Amino acid sequence: MGGSSFGTVFTVTTFGESHGPALGCVIDGCPAGVPFSLEDIRRELSRRRPGGGGPATTRSEPDEPEILSGVFEGRTLGTPIAVIVRNTSQRSGDYDNLKDLYRPGHADWVWEAKYGFRDHRGGGRSSGRETLGRVAAGAAAKAFLAGFGVTVRAWTSSAAGIDAPGAGESGFDLEEAERNPLRVPNRETAERILKVIEELRSGGDSAGGIVSCAVTGLPPGLGDPVFGKLDARLAGAMLSIGATKAVAFGAGFAAASSRGSLQNDRPVPKKYPMAPGSDTNTAGCNAIHTSVPGIGYETNNAGGVLGGISTGMPLEFTVAFKPIASISRQQKTVDRVGNVRDLVIQGRHDVCVCPRAVPVVEAMTALTLADLLLLNRSGRV
Amino acid sequence: MGGSSFGTVFTVTTFGESHGPALGCVIDGCPAGVPFSLEDIRRELSRRRPGGGGPATTRSEPDEPEILSGVFEGRTLGTPIAVIVRNTSQRSGDYDNLKDLYRPGHADWVWEAKYGFRDHRGGGRSSGRETLGRVAAGAAAKAFLAGFGVTVRAWTSSAAGIDAPGAGESGFDLEEAERNPLRVPNRETAERILKVIEELRSGGDSAGGIVSCAVTGLPPGLGDPVFGKLDARLAGAMLSIGATKAVAFGAGFAAASSRGSLQNDRPVPKKYPMAPGSDTNTAGCNAIHTSVPGIGYETNNAGGVLGGISTGMPLEFTVAFKPIASISRQQKTVDRVGNVRDLVIQGRHDVCVCPRAVPVVEAMTALTLADLLLLNRSGRV
Amino acid sequence: MGGSSFGTVFTVTTFGESHGPALGCVIDGCPAGVPFSLEDIRRELSRRRPGGGGPATTRSEPDEPEILSGVFEGRTLGTPIAVIVRNTSQRSGDYDNLKDLYRPGHADWVWEAKYGFRDHRGGGRSSGRETLGRVAAGAAAKAFLAGFGVTVRAWTSSAAGIDAPGAGESGFDLEEAERNPLRVPNRETAERILKVIEELRSGGDSAGGIVSCAVTGLPPGLGDPVFGKLDARLAGAMLSIGATKAVAFGAGFAAASSRGSLQNDRPVPKKYPMAPGSDTNTAGCNAIHTSVPGIGYETNNAGGVLGGISTGMPLEFTVAFKPIASISRQQKTVDRVGNVRDLVIQGRHDVCVCPRAVPVVEAMTALTLADLLLLNRSGRV
Amino acid sequence: MGGSSFGTVFTVTTFGESHGPALGCVIDGCPAGVPFSLEDIRRELSRRRPGGGGPATTRSEPDEPEILSGVFEGRTLGTPIAVIVRNTSQRSGDYDNLKDLYRPGHADWVWEAKYGFRDHRGGGRSSGRETLGRVAAGAAAKAFLAGFGVTVRAWTSSAAGIDAPGAGESGFDLEEAERNPLRVPNRETAERILKVIEELRSGGDSAGGIVSCAVTGLPPGLGDPVFGKLDARLAGAMLSIGATKAVAFGAGFAAASSRGSLQNDRPVPKKYPMAPGSDTNTAGCNAIHTSVPGIGYETNNAGGVLGGISTGMPLEFTVAFKPIASISRQQKTVDRVGNVRDLVIQGRHDVCVCPRAVPVVEAMTALTLADLLLLNRSGRV
Repeated sequence: MGGSSFGTVFTVTTFGESHGPALGCVIDGCPAGVPFSLEDIRRELSRRRPGGGGPATTRSEPDEPEILSGVFEGRTLGTPIAVIVRNTSQRSGDYDNLKDLYRPGHADWVWEAKYGFRDHRGGGRSSGRETLGRVAAGAAAKAFLAGFGVTVRAWTSSAAGIDAPGAGESGFDLEEAERNPLRVPNRETAERILKVIEELRSGGDSAGGIVSCAVTGLPPGLGDPVFGKLDARLAGAMLSIGATKAVAFGAGFAAASSRGSLQNDRPVPKKYPMAPGSDTNTAGCNAIHTSVPGIGYETNNAGGVLGGISTGMPLEFTVAFKPIASISRQQKTVDRVGNVRDLVIQGRHDVCVCPRAVPVVEAMTALTLADLLLLNRSGRV
Repeated sequence: MGGSSFGTVFTVTTFGESHGPALGCVIDGCPAGVPFSLEDIRRELSRRRPGGGGPATTRSEPDEPEILSGVFEGRTLGTPIAVIVRNTSQRSGDYDNLKDLYRPGHADWVWEAKYGFRDHRGGGRSSGRETLGRVAAGAAAKAFLAGFGVTVRAWTSSAAGIDAPGAGESGFDLEEAERNPLRVPNRETAERILKVIEELRSGGDSAGGIVSCAVTGLPPGLGDPVFGKLDARLAGAMLSIGATKAVAFGAGFAAASSRGSLQNDRPVPKKYPMAPGSDTNTAGCNAIHTSVPGIGYETNNAGGVLGGISTGMPLEFTVAFKPIASISRQQKTVDRVGNVRDLVIQGRHDVCVCPRAVPVVEAMTALTLADLLLLNRSGRV
Repeated sequence: MGGSSFGTVFTVTTFGESHGPALGCVIDGCPAGVPFSLEDIRRELSRRRPGGGGPATTRSEPDEPEILSGVFEGRTLGTPIAVIVRNTSQRSGDYDNLKDLYRPGHADWVWEAKYGFRDHRGGGRSSGRETLGRVAAGAAAKAFLAGFGVTVRAWTSSAAGIDAPGAGESGFDLEEAERNPLRVPNRETAERILKVIEELRSGGDSAGGIVSCAVTGLPPGLGDPVFGKLDARLAGAMLSIGATKAVAFGAGFAAASSRGSLQNDRPVPKKYPMAPGSDTNTAGCNAIHTSVPGIGYETNNAGGVLGGISTGMPLEFTVAFKPIASISRQQKTVDRVGNVRDLVIQGRHDVCVCPRAVPVVEAMTALTLADLLLLNRSGRV
Repeated sequence: MGGSSFGTVFTVTTFGESHGPALGCVIDGCPAGVPFSLEDIRRELSRRRPGGGGPATTRSEPDEPEILSGVFEGRTLGTPIAVIVRNTSQRSGDYDNLKDLYRPGHADWVWEAKYGFRDHRGGGRSSGRETLGRVAAGAAAKAFLAGFGVTVRAWTSSAAGIDAPGAGESGFDLEEAERNPLRVPNRETAERILKVIEELRSGGDSAGGIVSCAVTGLPPGLGDPVFGKLDARLAGAMLSIGATKAVAFGAGFAAASSRGSLQNDRPVPKKYPMAPGSDTNTAGCNAIHTSVPGIGYETNNAGGVLGGISTGMPLEFTVAFKPIASISRQQKTVDRVGNVRDLVIQGRHDVCVCPRAVPVVEAMTALTLADLLLLNRSGRV
């Protein structure tokens, strides 16, 4: 990991400030022949846009992407794919009173301490709009993963302190998460959270939340022991998303206060499909060595990873998001010459970041897995 | 990240299986002139060794390191530093009945699914002994960081479901953590945990726990926005440690159910030392741009990181460890031909991994920070 | 090195096919504050364009660049800099008869063997137009290097078998190289070469040549021993340029048939400027450790590099280019179903690539040095 | 590339100073199951040792390797392979008079300028003994390549200005190169060179030379366009070897003065083996896409690479080595306080480095190809 690039083989480099001419990304390493089009990108970007008028957000930003390279007649060429989105609809004026103040909860001051200046308009590269490039790249990663039957789904599992039913529990409905703008998988919970969010908005405050992610269809064997572990890569990918404070796999922190007899997932026999005529892990990644019996697990406290390697069970993890730092109630802070000042942030700001974060969590997960699938084609000779 | 190497500039490559001739590491990129010796390595390794007979562990393994290169007359040469530790005292016999069984909670099966075979003796490269190379490398990283006044300390903050007082709370004593073999910073809590651990040992079970880490002296400005964030790098480093399930920075998951008005750390004026005659971030990394006033924060919910960049406040995070998978009570599993079988694991196994994990958490943290310090010398021209 | 990205800290990712919507690059890792503008890019791109109607080329392609991010009010922001150039003026029709034939000297067949298809229009990503992204990125690298007093200059030192006077020899005039479209540093030689080129063009043939490069102002100490050597990095950078066949440093192949007594450059005392108040290598990289006397060399057979580290003498190397593969005389080849066929390549093609290659050699050199300067700030603690 | 590590997937990290306790390497990323043993390493190391008393060298250094990890019962485990060789037989006394002098042609001064000190005994990490780690790692790479039918062979094609017959020419005998200690593929030429070398030794001088390398069995399709070209990677690998001044592929510099009609290799039909039941490039890398006819080339001016991708023809290149810098005749130099001094280098030094360089060229080539083979498993989905 470093700077503005992510990945080793399937890589993405993002660029663009929120108030510059355009934002975008360059995806390198996506193999040729993957069905991919502008429509795939539009779909993912719209899931990111607050558009739909959902209660957690108040901005409206049409983001029309353009593919500059790497795609021809509906399939990837195997060459770098560049996607850009022009910036419009940025109300610079909203930020003028911030020119000399450091906003609490934001990286304003550390940015200046590091670089000697900052672009005070809208957060520059720290802006949430930076995720646009990630989500566009995630669209390509998802297209690649689809060819292997791997599906990535995320949803808001908790917001403003109110938990939705978990996966597998009664009331959990992933389709509902796609219908309501909070991305909560239960209608009743969504309505309760909505009430709290409206109160917070009126009170000039904000709320944190948790995004949960589940990946199905991932074959066993992905990940490199020691430093290239699957969960280590994902953890780095998740914490690279703005506003994140924590990531947990499977039982997560609950495992820390549990017992081995309760946490160990019991191995049980399970049938696995074998790649035709081969005993090696093919690019299709759905075969296991024929000398090994197929194994599944009775429970999944591991969250789909053991020893840093995928087990074939669903990959499950959660990401904690802190409350949006830009709140409209008055706060105390310090200005550029060191005086204590009062600050009131104006403009259009979300109350809870989770709905917007869901497609970003999916994108970073898809990018991590696409990279690993290409890196890990076979550990055997 | 990838395979057996960690880092971009200050790197470490570890090697060695638990039943091979030797384990070790090669540290590359450590600048010349750092005071470093065999004694520094011995000290860190002994903190890792269960030696002291502490109740959480039952093995005794003298690990005498040898420096093969890179150090001369008490200082680093700037060339790669190779350290090895010969393997002795491994009771292979303990593992014979495991040859055909997949141990629950271990990576036995996924390893075979990935590679086509596994070294059944003691976990091969998945073994806890692999951390030996990490800790030796961490000793070099710590020596480098010391030159910048950066100190890394970790301790067991929770085990078997019992929490110790937190940093800053009454009863928190870091020196106590160095005295008791559980590494718990409170004598009374350590004794209570010890009781539970003894019960678990008799009952053939195990417990999870949480390791907390605090870094002081870290200058503001470390970390690269977007993908090279300080917390993203650390998250990847922590999840690369065996038995980890989660990592959380600052308020962590608590932030997810909190409010912006509560989570935003208020900026306050603070005096910073300036590098003599310079306004840039020197290798000493303790200066900030002169055009920027010094800022501190009234609280530290951020945990010392904002926007992925260090703020100058203490860097604070926690790591959740699952219970040791090797428990001695009977478990059900599957064997190499797919039959359901009973399994009883014999041999010497820890009950809770946290005491051993503490120096590993410190090592990985030191390595991440050393790498970033070298990578981040200045973001300005 | 890998795929479409180059560099470790100061990196460039290029994208774009010659017949896609646009070409471009993303430069990441350029520190903030470097004076840089669209004009700098235009200037370098125009040096690359065959425009000026020079005899070695026959195409005319206006390439108007656009900066999408990373630059604000004439200075770099320290964020990724994205530059695009839209494709126009491509006469696709010229290539239709090539659809089923493999052109000799081109990568047509290996590309299909590797990817399963190829974009037959104009070479796809293998096209010379791909260098556009490199040259744009080189403009940023040059701007960064200028701040350290480092200058990169290249010229055509030989073409069609006719050698120009070498640097330091009578008749060598670098300003002349900027005046004539062959980029040859001697008017008389340029005219002789021009004659031969016209004959070759009429005869439907092409010529190879050599590009020489000299870097002045490079401080001693750049480069990492063993695998990160300065000349190793440059060699990889040069051979990544299309149509290259060899690279030689200093005396090059002549050293292979020489003697140690003749090749060893004699050290002589030399005064070096010291960075004020410091004995370390600063970001300015123009200081050497105070305990070391200043050394120069009486001759420069080494070409400015010893043991892979810059010596402070001018860095000098040459790059051999093979003749342009697209010649208009009839050639024999094989078609897509394996039959032997005759081929006549139509369209607009250069006779000798060297004039166009000069700015590309400069760009790749600047990118390599910028990366190394950032990577190598100090090897000392 | 960077510092002491080479490669992206199949990597090697070398360590060890010539006067430290030991030298060695860690090979990471070698897949499991490759037949490999201590004997393979011994064989390659002995080819490197001047042992055989050959005229070009005068030292005798028994180097007994030890494998510390990664190999079990004659096959690689897929885990990192650590190999060490203890240092003995170093006559430190030979170097005492050099303590205050900078040897011409060596990196003594640049090393001090960069690091602030140098280990004056025998060249530290700049010593030729550093290649020991590379050659040991090359043994593993060769073992891996053997499984794909890829063979790497190098030889001394020119020394002291005397050329041996080239590959394909009358008198060229690769077996003779393995019999005589100069590694020259023609007995008569070897004897003529030997005479000149003896004269040079008496006269206290040294000679340069050229090492040629040929790789057979390499499948078409290896290499990544733009920056990951096969020849770019090899060029960087070659120039990372000490004493190199240039590298040339195929016709090399001769192409620069030739014509397109002469340099273009004519495509001709050729039969290729297809992987059973598959049209993709398997790990075996010996299939090409079925929709593509098999192509060979009538000549091989390209040297086996086109557009940076292997063509399936033999990969052929040459590396120029400068004369050994340590000559025994008197030279003028500068000492550590800046005074001009006379210097006479004593001790045991080679006259021409080529015989020793041959196994190093083979090792670096094997490492580059092994890495690329793993990286390039398929560009198609």
